[in-house]
Amino acid sequence: MMGAVLLSEFATEIVVPVCAVIGIAFSLVQWLLVSRVKLNPERHASGNSNKNGYSDYLIEEEEGLNDPSVVTKCADIQSAISEGATSFLFTEYQYVGIFMVAFAILIFLFLGSVEGFSSKSQPCTYDKEKTCKPALATAIFSTISFLLGAITSVLSGFLGMKIATYANARTTLEARKGVGKAFIVAVRSGAVMGFLLAANGLLVLFVAINLFKLYYGDDWEGLFEAITGYGLGGSSMALFGRVGGGIYTKAADVGADLVGKVERNIPEDDPRNPAVIADNVGDNVGDIAGMGSDLFGSYAESSCAALVVASISSFGINHEFTAMLYPLLISSVGILVCLITTLFATDFFEIKAVKEIEPALKKQLIISTVLMTVGIAIVTWVGVPSSFTIYNFGDQKVVKNWQLFLCVGVGLWAGLIIGFVTEYYTSNAYSPVQDVADSCRTGAATNVIFGLALGYKSVIIPIFAIAICIFVSFSFAAMYGIAVAALGMLSTIATGLAIDAYGPISDNAGGIAEMAGMSHHIRERTDALDAAGNTTAAIGKGFAIGSAALVSLALFGAFVSRAAISTVDVLTPKVFIGLIVGAMLPYWFSAMTMKSVGSAALKMVEEVRRQFNTIPGLMEGRAKPDYATCVKISTDASIKEMIPPGALVMLTPLIVGTFFGVETLAGVLAGALVSGVQIAISASNTGGAWDNAKKYIEAGASEHARTLGPKGSDPHKAAVIGDTVGDPLKDTSGPSLNILIKLMAVESLVFAPFFATHGGLLFKIF
Amino acid sequence: MMGAVLLSEFATEIVVPVCAVIGIAFSLVQWLLVSRVKLNPERHASGNSNKNGYSDYLIEEEEGLNDPSVVTKCADIQSAISEGATSFLFTEYQYVGIFMVAFAILIFLFLGSVEGFSSKSQPCTYDKEKTCKPALATAIFSTISFLLGAITSVLSGFLGMKIATYANARTTLEARKGVGKAFIVAVRSGAVMGFLLAANGLLVLFVAINLFKLYYGDDWEGLFEAITGYGLGGSSMALFGRVGGGIYTKAADVGADLVGKVERNIPEDDPRNPAVIADNVGDNVGDIAGMGSDLFGSYAESSCAALVVASISSFGINHEFTAMLYPLLISSVGILVCLITTLFATDFFEIKAVKEIEPALKKQLIISTVLMTVGIAIVTWVGVPSSFTIYNFGDQKVVKNWQLFLCVGVGLWAGLIIGFVTEYYTSNAYSPVQDVADSCRTGAATNVIFGLALGYKSVIIPIFAIAICIFVSFSFAAMYGIAVAALGMLSTIATGLAIDAYGPISDNAGGIAEMAGMSHHIRERTDALDAAGNTTAAIGKGFAIGSAALVSLALFGAFVSRAAISTVDVLTPKVFIGLIVGAMLPYWFSAMTMKSVGSAALKMVEEVRRQFNTIPGLMEGRAKPDYATCVKISTDASIKEMIPPGALVMLTPLIVGTFFGVETLAGVLAGALVSGVQIAISASNTGGAWDNAKKYIEAGASEHARTLGPKGSDPHKAAVIGDTVGDPLKDTSGPSLNILIKLMAVESLVFAPFFATHGGLLFKIF
Repeated sequence: MMGAVLLSEFATEIVVPVCAVIGIAFSLVQWLLVSRVKLNPERHASGNSNKNGYSDYLIEEEEGLNDPSVVTKCADIQSAISEGATSFLFTEYQYVGIFMVAFAILIFLFLGSVEGFSSKSQPCTYDKEKTCKPALATAIFSTISFLLGAITSVLSGFLGMKIATYANARTTLEARKGVGKAFIVAVRSGAVMGFLLAANGLLVLFVAINLFKLYYGDDWEGLFEAITGYGLGGSSMALFGRVGGGIYTKAADVGADLVGKVERNIPEDDPRNPAVIADNVGDNVGDIAGMGSDLFGSYAESSCAALVVASISSFGINHEFTAMLYPLLISSVGILVCLITTLFATDFFEIKAVKEIEPALKKQLIISTVLMTVGIAIVTWVGVPSSFTIYNFGDQKVVKNWQLFLCVGVGLWAGLIIGFVTEYYTSNAYSPVQDVADSCRTGAATNVIFGLALGYKSVIIPIFAIAICIFVSFSFAAMYGIAVAALGMLSTIATGLAIDAYGPISDNAGGIAEMAGMSHHIRERTDALDAAGNTTAAIGKGFAIGSAALVSLALFGAFVSRAAISTVDVLTPKVFIGLIVGAMLPYWFSAMTMKSVGSAALKMVEEVRRQFNTIPGLMEGRAKPDYATCVKISTDASIKEMIPPGALVMLTPLIVGTFFGVETLAGVLAGALVSGVQIAISASNTGGAWDNAKKYIEAGASEHARTLGPKGSDPHKAAVIGDTVGDPLKDTSGPSLNILIKLMAVESLVFAPFFATHGGLLFKIF
Repeated sequence: MMGAVLLSEFATEIVVPVCAVIGIAFSLVQWLLVSRVKLNPERHASGNSNKNGYSDYLIEEEEGLNDPSVVTKCADIQSAISEGATSFLFTEYQYVGIFMVAFAILIFLFLGSVEGFSSKSQPCTYDKEKTCKPALATAIFSTISFLLGAITSVLSGFLGMKIATYANARTTLEARKGVGKAFIVAVRSGAVMGFLLAANGLLVLFVAINLFKLYYGDDWEGLFEAITGYGLGGSSMALFGRVGGGIYTKAADVGADLVGKVERNIPEDDPRNPAVIADNVGDNVGDIAGMGSDLFGSYAESSCAALVVASISSFGINHEFTAMLYPLLISSVGILVCLITTLFATDFFEIKAVKEIEPALKKQLIISTVLMTVGIAIVTWVGVPSSFTIYNFGDQKVVKNWQLFLCVGVGLWAGLIIGFVTEYYTSNAYSPVQDVADSCRTGAATNVIFGLALGYKSVIIPIFAIAICIFVSFSFAAMYGIAVAALGMLSTIATGLAIDAYGPISDNAGGIAEMAGMSHHIRERTDALDAAGNTTAAIGKGFAIGSAALVSLALFGAFVSRAAISTVDVLTPKVFIGLIVGAMLPYWFSAMTMKSVGSAALKMVEEVRRQFNTIPGLMEGRAKPDYATCVKISTDASIKEMIPPGALVMLTPLIVGTFFGVETLAGVLAGALVSGVQIAISASNTGGAWDNAKKYIEAGASEHARTLGPKGSDPHKAAVIGDTVGDPLKDTSGPSLNILIKLMAVESLVFAPFFATHGGLLFKIF
């Protein structure tokens, strides 16, 4: 029944690391190109006067190149932002480090206790006739891979932040030469981060598998079970990155807006606002470092979910190494595809007008998806046999290679659909956001009502896309199908992250232009970049949520397989109460994170007000505000506030599994998944729509928009209120929910052996 | 194994109708007492000067009794409200009537087609050896019971509205004599509605069962399957009542507030506001008629769910009539218990101070729950054998009578807990609402953020209460346990409805006082009544949602039993996609209803603005506004807008069942249930909290509250925005979700024979 695999084991061992190294090399080249924009005044003072003859002034009219003081100012602001971000991340990592060590010990103790810390070999879970490595080995290696995943995640976030803060002032300075040049710098910087993350994640996973193999030998079941710790490590760091970063960024943003824009009537990013540096730091620690950790977590988890299911399918049973590493091969090809895609944005075409920015970014998605479809076809053709079997809750299901191709492909294209639907609901080029903007005419209340309704409505098509994707991949290849569908969605992660990181970089570039007192024209250019960035950020969030849904379902399936449950029957009280309580958890979690943002913002408001009231000459621009105190407030608040929601997510699977057992836990996971994905999508789209409705009124680009504006009009004030409400929704509670659903699933998977053996204490007692 | 039942069949046939008649008689007595407050000036002009010596002026200082013109004014306003409400309901019933006939035909065709409209007897579904009545009979009798349920529901809503509009001006007039007197009138009027509904619903069901029995004889399986149509009829009317009424009331309310309070700075219920009558009409058609239909639907459905499961358990198999009618016996005792409870509010104690109002209403809940616990014990002791079996997805489960008592009891007490948690989160006597009020200091944005977070948080305890209730009743008595737990929660429905209807009656009374230009003191008295009413309304919604969750689970179980599915396994693609799409439906539905309120409110805003701008002297009070046009706008908008959400709810089960089959439909029902209940609770509590945060600032009863006020201050304006956002959440989309989850379940149950035979077309083709 099994066909031969065209790609030899040796070739696989070469292809995967080579692709990863290519990705890292490409990332370094991009970084080198970005670094050519110098942050010292001399070079620019000499000027570069090659005009290229386009008529749009935003594009080519050079401006302020001969003012060296601006360069110095930009460099100063950049270093202030970079320092603030670095200091926050280091503080965060101190706490997270303690957690990491504690949780690593917990993993070791729980998993070690399954067989009473015995170092004797044991019968395998699925094939009782074979002998597998002892549970103690699983405990040790799971702990190691947990730490590996955690460190890789932390590194991903940190590097992303470093690159972004390296690039933002450079984007501002390039904006003096034209919007096209600035666009390229921003895209390249995004690419540095995207490729570094994708390649790094792949390489570490590849090396870990090969090293673990030295010990495990032919016990692939144990090997890949231990590897799941990698996903748990990645995701648990992502939780703190997203939640901590999310609270940080929004406390600063909301705090800055409430006093600056609303009370003092000064523009966004005005250097007189004491919270302005904290706000810009927040973009980097929340949207860049947080997003990086989040997507790295999804990537690691979907790979782990696929690997653990494959290890008990024919790939693992027959020890077909190439087929076993199919998930890594997809990611390898993904890096090559994204590399070509990036060239389309930076080298093959040039941005000639402002209106070309958003289409250029959207084209990135389309190009990468089309190319990747071909890539998947090739990998599936050479990497897996024409027919094989996949473990399906107790039995083995026969799968053809073309069916597997469809599983990955449907995930890839579902991602694109989710991306475009997100764009439709959050871009102010379309009627939904324009309707929300229009509702500002009757005040903030109707704006909020329409915005919430838009978010709810925006859930419909993505859920159908996810449902179809699940149905196809589930029907063809059970939980392995779901896992590779998630991988398909994430296969273009380098491009996704690149255009996603582009957003906050442009946003920061605008902030720096404003703070450095650069001319109106420069600010318009960075605003044009930023407006497109808002939409790509929303698309990125759409991807993150869609993939999180698939990933957590795949992990859920792997957990159920590992816990040896064959059905999760809603018609049993244990499962049903799990389902309804699980569906409640995203609400509990959101309540915590939103309240945290609110409280932290209130503290920030008080500090900003205090500075305006007590520092003489601040409003007149004669005195400098105390930026550092605001940075400290955001840092302290976010560190303190991230603990309760973090504890909720990390402890729920442990408590439910230990006291109520695997069936109830399965119910909780399913409930949290189906409920959380809806809130996550609606929250992030509602927030994005409010943000862009405000921008729509501010830009006044159409007849309709001008009837609502200008800045400071009543409709605009109503729009600002909507935007402020949306901030925690779209940047804190919404995206953190991705992690909630993924993390609970992967944690359950890692602890499954323990729960299956010792779990359900309460029901055992009664 | 089976013990004897103490209550004979004959006694049961007497007890149930007698209790129902007592309920109706009590309701008439209360109505008679209310009608003693005359709406013609003569009697009052003579005055009733018996002062009773209490010191609180709100209580006893009589005011304005000698002004006959006030009485005439009140009578006029009342008749305007009553006319508006009647005209809206008649318009609504015209459309609903068409739907009712069309859907009745659909039921007949779908169910008739199961056996090809054959009039031959057939083997029973569960006991294949017995012969049951033909499927055609089920089709005919299901259609009849659907119509019976629909008509009873319409009647319930209509009578409730009539009573409320009869009582509101009378409450205002009594308020001249003191707050205690007004309180008694409002409570009595609520009781008229509560008892009429509960008794009426019970009586019609009882009569229908006895009439159907004449045809069905010993085929109880067919008999009670046909009876489920009663629940479907009740619930489908409730859908239109809730959605139509909800859109009506909030379009008027939001429209009136946006122009009146925000733009023109005139107080609530000011007679110069053209939308003021529409607003008061809305309270009656939405909160009274809608709520009445909703709770009647829950009552009918939980009874039907219990009956249909009992019919295939030992009660039905052994033809134990008394035990079979156990659900009706509980409701019968419930009427007696509620009767005694009402006397505590109206006769045994007297309200002597404003601060006693809320405790008096809360005591109603506690008294009825305590008494009912005894009532349930008695009914269970005399009504069911000491041991019996209950159908449990394929097998029969042995249940003891004390276990059944616990099932009903846990439902009853879970209801009380949900009620009190709701009160904690929505009453401004506690810190959650005070925190929300405090967040208004920094503007509307933080108010909205804190309010949303409060709503999310308020879900936690109710969900745990529901989960424990489900676990206990499910474990003891499978789906029958869930159904009787729902009945337990609804057993005190008469009291629940009474204190619930009390709210809008007091609200209207306040509106009439304002419009009639009555003194400040009178308005303060009605405000005190109204503030307590807000909390009881929130408690009522909590009950409605909690019982809806249990009811729909019971219906879901009955559907699964009827469709002959033995497991609903989340680990199958068919079920999982159902689950995730089902969890999405409440969002889709909420998007529709919220957008509808928004659009309808915008139309209202335009009309109100037009009137202020074009009617000379309106603002100065010299000219009368054109109330009728505003009433018409609300009527037309709500009728038009209720169709799409109605279609979504009614068509989903039909489409999913027909094309995707019973497994996917089971997934959809479970998903909609676990997701919908969370949104419903959070939406209704968020809205309630915003409303009371505003009232907290307005009342300025504490030091803290006074720092936020007075009316017109910036925090107060922010609070008004929150209140306006909350209006559609708490009165339209939130409560309508109860009906979504119940109605889809009961519809699936009624159509189960069709889906089981002809469903799943798509999967059959591919």
